[in-house]
Amino acid sequence: MAGYNRYGHGYDTQGYGGGGGGGYGQAPPPSAPPAPPSSSYGHGQGGYPPSYPPPLQTAGGFGFGFGGVAFPPGTHPDVERAFRAADRDGSGAIDEHELQGALSSAYHRFSIRTVRLLMFLFINPATSSPSRMGPADFVSLWNCLRQWRGIFDRYDRDRSGKIDSRELTEALRSIGYAVPPSVIELLIANYNNGVSCNGALDFDNFVECGMIVKCLTEKFKEKDTRYTGSATLTYDGFLSTAIPFIVP
Amino acid sequence: MAGYNRYGHGYDTQGYGGGGGGGYGQAPPPSAPPAPPSSSYGHGQGGYPPSYPPPLQTAGGFGFGFGGVAFPPGTHPDVERAFRAADRDGSGAIDEHELQGALSSAYHRFSIRTVRLLMFLFINPATSSPSRMGPADFVSLWNCLRQWRGIFDRYDRDRSGKIDSRELTEALRSIGYAVPPSVIELLIANYNNGVSCNGALDFDNFVECGMIVKCLTEKFKEKDTRYTGSATLTYDGFLSTAIPFIVP
Repeated sequence: MAGYNRYGHGYDTQGYGGGGGGGYGQAPPPSAPPAPPSSSYGHGQGGYPPSYPPPLQTAGGFGFGFGGVAFPPGTHPDVERAFRAADRDGSGAIDEHELQGALSSAYHRFSIRTVRLLMFLFINPATSSPSRMGPADFVSLWNCLRQWRGIFDRYDRDRSGKIDSRELTEALRSIGYAVPPSVIELLIANYNNGVSCNGALDFDNFVECGMIVKCLTEKFKEKDTRYTGSATLTYDGFLSTAIPFIVP
Repeated sequence: MAGYNRYGHGYDTQGYGGGGGGGYGQAPPPSAPPAPPSSSYGHGQGGYPPSYPPPLQTAGGFGFGFGGVAFPPGTHPDVERAFRAADRDGSGAIDEHELQGALSSAYHRFSIRTVRLLMFLFINPATSSPSRMGPADFVSLWNCLRQWRGIFDRYDRDRSGKIDSRELTEALRSIGYAVPPSVIELLIANYNNGVSCNGALDFDNFVECGMIVKCLTEKFKEKDTRYTGSATLTYDGFLSTAIPFIVP
């Protein structure tokens, strides 16, 4: 769990396996759509509707507002505004309930469980308290959610507000994670009272699932640098990878 | 995830590593108490106080009560009674809230999160709906919790109702899991707003932690049959092991 933020900013656009959509551990089926190229990530296939949250970066911005709270250069004013509105006491950091509120207007009213996972993943433990998120981590999270929203909407083809197992498989494959059908079934079942048949995920569940798959895959990749589909882990490493996602 | 119940009944009393307290992956420190022998498991060092829930088995019992609900032979009448009281409609299975209620009087008012984990681990997916627990699985769970309660009370030496990181380390070691200090810290921190220093676990957290450590270790052991401390996992196997514990 090294580096800035626990699992890095954003995610791979080239896909696990290096093929840009080939995904990890198996070849894509003929029906799988190719992954969008990096340059169109989150903008391909129709682009964002006008109501989308603003992007992370704007040209020429400075991002350092009043009050000494430092935003990354180029932070969109709306992202900064969302953070400042949530940070009512101007302390420069927001707690889980404030984060839940800040994300609600732009994205989704995430469950507090998902908010906690997001805080765990995006708070830089070297510079922040684990229970309060600063502006730089907030901007990273905002940008990441914007990408997940784009993926969700691209694969929720019937605009039902939910994605089923086939759509989830394709969505994860589009960002390079060829998650085996048995795991997709597990994911769907676990959000649908143990039943995978006809189950689906809303955006909240999708973000939680996607983040977990992404982070576990990244940890696995660290041990499988040659992309063989197998990795050797120590007992310590295995527990340390899985447990942070399991306990609250 | 094969076999009866997802992770088997009860747990090893000989310890991971075969040493009966040596634990997995490292030698016990000089200060670690030896694991209790199997015969005294849950009964050593003072035994159960009189208020403890009744044991699983009583000599000569039959366990088949009225109403066609089949209990394992020898089920203690109090365990049977607890199940029947929870199963108000006499359907022969109880849901998560009924299970929560049934366990409250004897053990602890577990959070619904822990209750769901217990249902996931103890319901036999081959014979039951994943959301309803039958009598045989209930008896297994009851017995297992009785053992965890014994361990908790043995290591909660100051009777504070909580165990700290040292006590948790010793408690897990006593049943054969030599969990690395970094993982113990993670566990404690995750139940204490991200801070491990001076953190502690109540019985609910302890059961959740202990079950997770036990189950992950058992899955790891399946791939590390020679107890080397390392195991090779496939991507599919790795995700399939971790994800059931992560998503709700």
